[in-house]
Amino acid sequence: MAIAVGAHPILAPGWSGKEHTDIALVDCDVHQTVEKMDDLIPYMSRIYAQQAREQGFRLAGSGYFNVAGDIARQDLAETDCDGKHSGHHVGYRYEQLKAQHLDIWNVDKVLLTGASTYGASVLPDPDFAADMCRAFNDWTIDQWLDNDDRLLAAISVNVNDPQSAIAEIERLGPDPRVRAVMLPTGSRMPYGNRFYHPIWEACEHNGLVIGIHPGNEGAGMAGPPTGVGYPTYYIETRMARPQMAMAHAVSFIAEGVFEKFPGLKVLIDECDQFWAVGLMWHMDADWKSLRDQTPWLKRLPSEYFRGHIRVGTQPMLEPETNEQFWMMLNALHAEETLVYSSDWPHWDWDDPASTFPKLPERLHRRVFADNARELFGL
Amino acid sequence: MAIAVGAHPILAPGWSGKEHTDIALVDCDVHQTVEKMDDLIPYMSRIYAQQAREQGFRLAGSGYFNVAGDIARQDLAETDCDGKHSGHHVGYRYEQLKAQHLDIWNVDKVLLTGASTYGASVLPDPDFAADMCRAFNDWTIDQWLDNDDRLLAAISVNVNDPQSAIAEIERLGPDPRVRAVMLPTGSRMPYGNRFYHPIWEACEHNGLVIGIHPGNEGAGMAGPPTGVGYPTYYIETRMARPQMAMAHAVSFIAEGVFEKFPGLKVLIDECDQFWAVGLMWHMDADWKSLRDQTPWLKRLPSEYFRGHIRVGTQPMLEPETNEQFWMMLNALHAEETLVYSSDWPHWDWDDPASTFPKLPERLHRRVFADNARELFGL
Repeated sequence: MAIAVGAHPILAPGWSGKEHTDIALVDCDVHQTVEKMDDLIPYMSRIYAQQAREQGFRLAGSGYFNVAGDIARQDLAETDCDGKHSGHHVGYRYEQLKAQHLDIWNVDKVLLTGASTYGASVLPDPDFAADMCRAFNDWTIDQWLDNDDRLLAAISVNVNDPQSAIAEIERLGPDPRVRAVMLPTGSRMPYGNRFYHPIWEACEHNGLVIGIHPGNEGAGMAGPPTGVGYPTYYIETRMARPQMAMAHAVSFIAEGVFEKFPGLKVLIDECDQFWAVGLMWHMDADWKSLRDQTPWLKRLPSEYFRGHIRVGTQPMLEPETNEQFWMMLNALHAEETLVYSSDWPHWDWDDPASTFPKLPERLHRRVFADNARELFGL
Repeated sequence: MAIAVGAHPILAPGWSGKEHTDIALVDCDVHQTVEKMDDLIPYMSRIYAQQAREQGFRLAGSGYFNVAGDIARQDLAETDCDGKHSGHHVGYRYEQLKAQHLDIWNVDKVLLTGASTYGASVLPDPDFAADMCRAFNDWTIDQWLDNDDRLLAAISVNVNDPQSAIAEIERLGPDPRVRAVMLPTGSRMPYGNRFYHPIWEACEHNGLVIGIHPGNEGAGMAGPPTGVGYPTYYIETRMARPQMAMAHAVSFIAEGVFEKFPGLKVLIDECDQFWAVGLMWHMDADWKSLRDQTPWLKRLPSEYFRGHIRVGTQPMLEPETNEQFWMMLNALHAEETLVYSSDWPHWDWDDPASTFPKLPERLHRRVFADNARELFGL
């Protein structure tokens, strides 16, 4: 496979293909994962390393089968960069990301969103969970960030233990490569709840974005992944992603998080986009009747959304007609709210060239670079 | 207030106002409620009547405050049909519905969707719950259906007890005025789960639609009303309605309910509409990769949706632009899926004249009458 490196952009349908000197392509969802959880053990405290070595990591499962074959791209598994078949769980080596994503697509910046430790926030023991998060963050710095200045990290924290989450934010927040915390959609409470506000205060103080990504839905203490209990099939849990995104987004807004922490931004990845449109319309309509219950809100709910919440492109909605597609981008205020996300290396990832038809120049810049640059202060 | 009776249609913006001889206006969500739960006691079995009299009905609350003032229209409370102020809980007398809704708006058929007994399905004792449902249904027949042939009923059943639910469907299903069962959105499992299939079989056999309406969210055994736990404010529970609608709809489809019971139809009221558009798009895209997990599905998920699920108009989505409004109706396939619902007599109800701008003649007929006529076999 021919690989274009560096400043040689791809020519493909919908892709501008222009040469550039500044940041023109930011990918807001790239997963780095450990090949096996034991890879974290060298980075862990002695007692927790021992527990993990002897009894495993005790991560809660949800019981839903993913797609047949592999959750990662099988084409990558078969063409690993050093020529040998890499098997399952593609995404555990920097060199692969470099060769098979960054260089091919000429990506300028990526947000590493992890995955291995999303389950930390539904583990019973908060100290074990925090140690696991710390280990994963140190592994990420060691194995990924130190290799390439295109890499940014959304660090792992146990969001259900504000004390350890804040300590980790204070420890790593000053590193300029750390730009976000990463939380799973599946949670015990909606993330606007005041229980979490001390964490959000630390995020704002350290300039970290709150990243939210599918994970933990239906697992352990996260409880059922829909408002009507546990569904049966994996496709239902995928349809639950926009539901969870809605619940978190309205919670941030209704609880006044963005009045309390005006510098705070939220990125919601891999939950599709249409939910944001309907939520803005419905919230604004209802708020006009119910605003006395949340008097700290000074503006329309949709204004908080547009000012503070960003939505990843993957999976990009697939309307029946082109007209509907353009209208939905418009209704989403995509020029403010939408950021390109690939979800590399998962099977349902979206490459930067064919996610969209050719966008107008300005919208292309906003979605592929400028919205993310503003979000992460690049 | 001048009241137009019978064949004298209202002239108002968006309303065709034409004289008609056949069914031209069907309202798929009108709430009849008991003034106080004790009104059901004369209709109950002796032991349960005694329990209710001595200790109340023990309905689970969710703790969320509704709008300030009253959940019902205060204008109705102040202009009760016999001239006296009726106080709270408007909607407990047929005469009021007749004078202040049916006659004013020249409504041809309404589906009585209840409300008083939605909580039955999260009561611990299934026999008490079933008795309460039976009593409410008999009260509805006695106090409402027997007065007016414009009235149809969605009967109350305890959906978490298939045996009693089926017994009640068999008891009342043969009554031609009974056209649906009524279920609350808040539930212990998504309604496509095979636990419920014997009830759906009885519904299909008796020609009853499955009606779903907000209720029980966050109450008792229904568990948390979102996939991420309990939100804090009422507006969040309102935003949870489309989330719950999505979870139920995808469950019906993924579990193959419409392959198993091809005559079955579902009506989802008061959850808005946009969710249905996004769900159809997202389900179709995902199903192409995941269809091996639900091999009983023979068609695209959206085809099951369009063939079997109907969505009430109230609250009608309020996009930012007219262009978006028309596009959403189009994307929803409103000519097949959308049925007029008023939610009378609640504060956020939608009257039939101003819910829409003037619709094209054919679409007007479909939304205000023909979709519901086909749904209920009128």
